[in-house]
Amino acid sequence: MSFAVTPYTPPDFDAAHLREAPDARLKPAPKDFVAPEGYHAMSIYPEYLKLNGQWVLARDSRMDCVAVVEDGEIFVREFRHIKKGDLIACGRTEHGEEGILVYTEGFRELDLPEPGAPHPGGHDNFAFRLGRSRETAFSRDYDELYALLEHEREHGYVVWVLGPAFSFNGYSRDAFAKIIDAGYVDAVFAGNALATHDLEGAYFHTALGQDIDTQENRPNGHYHHLDTINRVRYWGSIDKFIEEEHVHDGIMHALEKNHVPYVLAGSIRDDGPLPGVFGNAYAAQDVMRSHIRKATTVICLATMLHTIATGNMTPSYRVLEDGTVRPVYFYCVDIAEFTVNKLVDRGSLASRGIVTNVQDFIAHVGKGLGVLG
Amino acid sequence: MSFAVTPYTPPDFDAAHLREAPDARLKPAPKDFVAPEGYHAMSIYPEYLKLNGQWVLARDSRMDCVAVVEDGEIFVREFRHIKKGDLIACGRTEHGEEGILVYTEGFRELDLPEPGAPHPGGHDNFAFRLGRSRETAFSRDYDELYALLEHEREHGYVVWVLGPAFSFNGYSRDAFAKIIDAGYVDAVFAGNALATHDLEGAYFHTALGQDIDTQENRPNGHYHHLDTINRVRYWGSIDKFIEEEHVHDGIMHALEKNHVPYVLAGSIRDDGPLPGVFGNAYAAQDVMRSHIRKATTVICLATMLHTIATGNMTPSYRVLEDGTVRPVYFYCVDIAEFTVNKLVDRGSLASRGIVTNVQDFIAHVGKGLGVLG
Amino acid sequence: MSFAVTPYTPPDFDAAHLREAPDARLKPAPKDFVAPEGYHAMSIYPEYLKLNGQWVLARDSRMDCVAVVEDGEIFVREFRHIKKGDLIACGRTEHGEEGILVYTEGFRELDLPEPGAPHPGGHDNFAFRLGRSRETAFSRDYDELYALLEHEREHGYVVWVLGPAFSFNGYSRDAFAKIIDAGYVDAVFAGNALATHDLEGAYFHTALGQDIDTQENRPNGHYHHLDTINRVRYWGSIDKFIEEEHVHDGIMHALEKNHVPYVLAGSIRDDGPLPGVFGNAYAAQDVMRSHIRKATTVICLATMLHTIATGNMTPSYRVLEDGTVRPVYFYCVDIAEFTVNKLVDRGSLASRGIVTNVQDFIAHVGKGLGVLG
Amino acid sequence: MSFAVTPYTPPDFDAAHLREAPDARLKPAPKDFVAPEGYHAMSIYPEYLKLNGQWVLARDSRMDCVAVVEDGEIFVREFRHIKKGDLIACGRTEHGEEGILVYTEGFRELDLPEPGAPHPGGHDNFAFRLGRSRETAFSRDYDELYALLEHEREHGYVVWVLGPAFSFNGYSRDAFAKIIDAGYVDAVFAGNALATHDLEGAYFHTALGQDIDTQENRPNGHYHHLDTINRVRYWGSIDKFIEEEHVHDGIMHALEKNHVPYVLAGSIRDDGPLPGVFGNAYAAQDVMRSHIRKATTVICLATMLHTIATGNMTPSYRVLEDGTVRPVYFYCVDIAEFTVNKLVDRGSLASRGIVTNVQDFIAHVGKGLGVLG
Repeated sequence: MSFAVTPYTPPDFDAAHLREAPDARLKPAPKDFVAPEGYHAMSIYPEYLKLNGQWVLARDSRMDCVAVVEDGEIFVREFRHIKKGDLIACGRTEHGEEGILVYTEGFRELDLPEPGAPHPGGHDNFAFRLGRSRETAFSRDYDELYALLEHEREHGYVVWVLGPAFSFNGYSRDAFAKIIDAGYVDAVFAGNALATHDLEGAYFHTALGQDIDTQENRPNGHYHHLDTINRVRYWGSIDKFIEEEHVHDGIMHALEKNHVPYVLAGSIRDDGPLPGVFGNAYAAQDVMRSHIRKATTVICLATMLHTIATGNMTPSYRVLEDGTVRPVYFYCVDIAEFTVNKLVDRGSLASRGIVTNVQDFIAHVGKGLGVLG
Repeated sequence: MSFAVTPYTPPDFDAAHLREAPDARLKPAPKDFVAPEGYHAMSIYPEYLKLNGQWVLARDSRMDCVAVVEDGEIFVREFRHIKKGDLIACGRTEHGEEGILVYTEGFRELDLPEPGAPHPGGHDNFAFRLGRSRETAFSRDYDELYALLEHEREHGYVVWVLGPAFSFNGYSRDAFAKIIDAGYVDAVFAGNALATHDLEGAYFHTALGQDIDTQENRPNGHYHHLDTINRVRYWGSIDKFIEEEHVHDGIMHALEKNHVPYVLAGSIRDDGPLPGVFGNAYAAQDVMRSHIRKATTVICLATMLHTIATGNMTPSYRVLEDGTVRPVYFYCVDIAEFTVNKLVDRGSLASRGIVTNVQDFIAHVGKGLGVLG
Repeated sequence: MSFAVTPYTPPDFDAAHLREAPDARLKPAPKDFVAPEGYHAMSIYPEYLKLNGQWVLARDSRMDCVAVVEDGEIFVREFRHIKKGDLIACGRTEHGEEGILVYTEGFRELDLPEPGAPHPGGHDNFAFRLGRSRETAFSRDYDELYALLEHEREHGYVVWVLGPAFSFNGYSRDAFAKIIDAGYVDAVFAGNALATHDLEGAYFHTALGQDIDTQENRPNGHYHHLDTINRVRYWGSIDKFIEEEHVHDGIMHALEKNHVPYVLAGSIRDDGPLPGVFGNAYAAQDVMRSHIRKATTVICLATMLHTIATGNMTPSYRVLEDGTVRPVYFYCVDIAEFTVNKLVDRGSLASRGIVTNVQDFIAHVGKGLGVLG
Repeated sequence: MSFAVTPYTPPDFDAAHLREAPDARLKPAPKDFVAPEGYHAMSIYPEYLKLNGQWVLARDSRMDCVAVVEDGEIFVREFRHIKKGDLIACGRTEHGEEGILVYTEGFRELDLPEPGAPHPGGHDNFAFRLGRSRETAFSRDYDELYALLEHEREHGYVVWVLGPAFSFNGYSRDAFAKIIDAGYVDAVFAGNALATHDLEGAYFHTALGQDIDTQENRPNGHYHHLDTINRVRYWGSIDKFIEEEHVHDGIMHALEKNHVPYVLAGSIRDDGPLPGVFGNAYAAQDVMRSHIRKATTVICLATMLHTIATGNMTPSYRVLEDGTVRPVYFYCVDIAEFTVNKLVDRGSLASRGIVTNVQDFIAHVGKGLGVLG
């Protein structure tokens, strides 16, 4: 199966309501961190502002942020980054009436029925297949994902968002390390726990004291994650620990070896934390978003916190350097329908949810990409 | 809060496409239990067939069943009840083209947005509120339910479908018994387990050997449900057991005392079973449906099997004796979104899901109706 | 990885408390279907009764049933099969005091810590690894399962219990058909839905109207399962339908082709049902148990109803024809911890739970056994 | 029902193994943030170190932290607070062998069976009642909780940990405000979302744009939470916003009015954030722990992140000012068994899990305490 990126159809700017639309209204921020009354909040969709009579696309976006205009260019910023006097687009209509166009049709090549559209027979069985549940058939999604990843390895930027669960399992930990080695990973977002368990796996061959292959509990194994953290803190950094302790397997090792950037965002549930973990959530957000600005595919595995955080900052489109507009593919893989549906109900055709255990998911992906024997 | 039943707007039979529609095509069943090619399958909605130039409403319906026409009247029957030669409506269009009208608009007084309709900002937070989840606000649903039940006590027929869970808890078991005493229950559907645990509660003050008030485990308490079943079998029936063993509390006692009919459908997971439990699933279905034919409100609590079974046989409307058409209100209460959404995605405005523990639900309802101190 | 069946260590009948134990007390059943006062209820463990001074093992057992003694042999029967006058073992002690020995130690070669045993540090992370959850590492379980299935193909009898979910997915449906073809399946328990969706897959290449490979919805696809059922009813049996309609793929086809017996137990939620589905739950139970009497491994996939039903009738041991006693391995695979833990908390070391989507599980098993490319 | 705090039985220090135990070994930290080799990690239990021949109790503790000894007193500190040269207790035995006593028996007045202890009949029904699930009976837990809260209002310090879910519902939001007003709340831990939705409720009578009483969606309601945040940022603080905007209802208003301290911990999924939210996770942890040092009861509602964070820092005991040692009661209320069991498997008798929707829980508690009409 080969993969073709869905092409983008720009708006018809010759349409009367767009041609005759006024310029967007810009108002200065009254204070640092505060938007002016009536500010426009951005969405996940491509949005255009009319500036000096021209429709200008926001080259990057983030839902629920504001559009700051500087020198005719649009910068989409979080409220906490607003500076007093920033010129911020105002208006709460979306079809050009106030010079703002929220454009939801760019990738609608497919003539899909709207979810929720009436189906006269009203058969509940029919209806429930529209959402994603444990009873959805997922093999087509797997096949598309393998093809997408092959494409993205050459042409895209794939961000993986990892919960800690699959580092407990030697097999899936190895599988993901091989996926990194093979070049399918451009950045990783995770928390202190994923890194800690993975490094414990390298240092003690356990996760939380349990052998990652045989699942046997080791005596005093509940010290292992603390000893690991303490040892990394002793060396002062994860890469120094990897070097000095001759770590040669696992996810963090593969990331360091392949120079794949990672963002470890701290949280209030952390022990330690490891050196390199961001204590400040908003600093972590900023670094995460610097990767999302490049992302063409995002794959989130078994972490509600990091998945929602990433989903919040991921637009549905990407403007490539040559100006091409393409979709950002967004996958959420979790064992709970609640999490999956929370993320994929974004109104974007490029969002996919898969309801399964991520250990199995990552093993399938490793086999599907041919990196596992 | 008082309750007003949503009024029904009949179809406009003067519209050209209905006025000029042909009669429905009737074909004889080729064999017992087998429908003719091209049979029409019914839905949960009011459906009309054109018979001898007149649009005739099916006074009762069941999804995925066939319409048998006898003497100008429509009988909606399961495939297993088809007799060779039955005249069955055929056609798979739904707007009159073949004399069949599936009428989904009868109760649409409310100008609700369609679920899934585009909301230009594409905010995921907005979207997820449309489904039912643990994060949905439910107090309005509770208030409406209390008002509905007050109304139905006088004017309706309320079928309760009970999973076994809340019989484990003395408080909620009592609460439901009081709701029965107060007249809010017209029929109960349940399985062998609900009845067994409830009778164990009456006989030993335990459920599966655990005190239903203090939750202490009793010595050899795992014999209690077996001893209860054995004793009921000894007496030969539940009512005889209640009489002979001087049972004076619980759900089964309240049902017997108030002459409220109940259907206990057996399943392959049963011990026993108790006398009176239907071993044959389809015989149970038939009796269940005989109650559903009268039901104006159905409330399903924490049982996926019985809830789906009941949902499958419940239409969205009821034709009262005076010919009035009214909605059937359908509630599904379960702790799992998976179950709730499976049931309420029926395309009927009168379906409601509540995601909670049914013990708490029933205690709230008891207090809301004023039957609990 | 090769597989060795855990050997059985019989009780030490020379121990004083067993040597001096009295004969088991037998009392006649007072009525059909009713056990005498003080009857003994069987467990999942090997149990011995002292009869005429000899300890006799129940060669087959079922939890919560009674032991009927006929001609010095023990028959473990459901209450519904008791006949008036049957001699039934009585007594509620379990260490020989009343001639009854419930023997839980036969397979304890492993020196495992008891679940829940005190671990002085009291670290919650440690504790939660003892149960089975989405965060348990499962690859060891997979490896053991592959080895077990290789062993059982030659020496055992493997019963698979199937929920409907994976028949929605062409890939996992094919995978299971190949597992059948390769001889790893000795019997299948399922419901009307699994068979219906699978045959719809063969007849229309859909499940509930959705293409099983591409997941596209077909026009009027909600008729497909009804049309399939109607057609099977027309031919009168599943095998006749397969023959006459030239069905050549899927699970039912593989079962018929390989003469693997299957039990389809009906339930109150069924449409149809298909010919061959048991309407009577207790008749279905009896046939299921006739297979379980031979089972050495049971694998339950994504069906709470059938899994609990099967778990209820499965003992932890099997007496082979040559008198060898061996464990029965029992797997429960489900996406919900609630279901998995309900089944595997049986006090049997041979029970395993795996928390995942069964589509992924079956694909892994197919690959692990080498039957998928 | 009245409440009696479980009394504490100190260790028998006259026992030979404790009398003859050596002093605890103290080693200096080699660097800031790094513990010496062989450090001892603390647990949730009361722990004693032998210092200068005397057994000294750690008056406060935190699992997985180290014991720093200063002037004969024990301070339990996170790794990140270790300073080079701190004298840290070392040793990984727990019964006095190295001068460390982890004392798990202090509150064992009750002669409960160990969870997981063998129950010879091996009945699965019996076993599953030991954990907490949707099928556990909870009314005894409710009754105990009401009595506990009455006691704690006079004698304790109750920390509530709140997920955002119940602020969506006007009724439960009011209920909790009344519980605060009545004096049952000594501190609140929450995130940016809870405060935002609650203030949106005060400002717009909506949560995420949906009316908190009628659940109707308001036009452009997806702006409401942003407008609320923006307005709070405009005023510079939550209390100033409450004052200037004349907020007179809700949770934050009740906290401010009653001078109940709260900790809002930021996370990577935040919009905004509101002024006063901690951006730094570890600074938030420190403030949270300053409250936990006083806590006698902790009640966590529907937030896995904050619940685990709080659970990690909460010991099973509290040393009151007069030296009395008492348990800390810890409740986890969530709709998911996964979350509940993760928290309550702590080996502490004073931990309780309740599986339900927190909206219903809080309404029950309000009624049980008599603060709701």
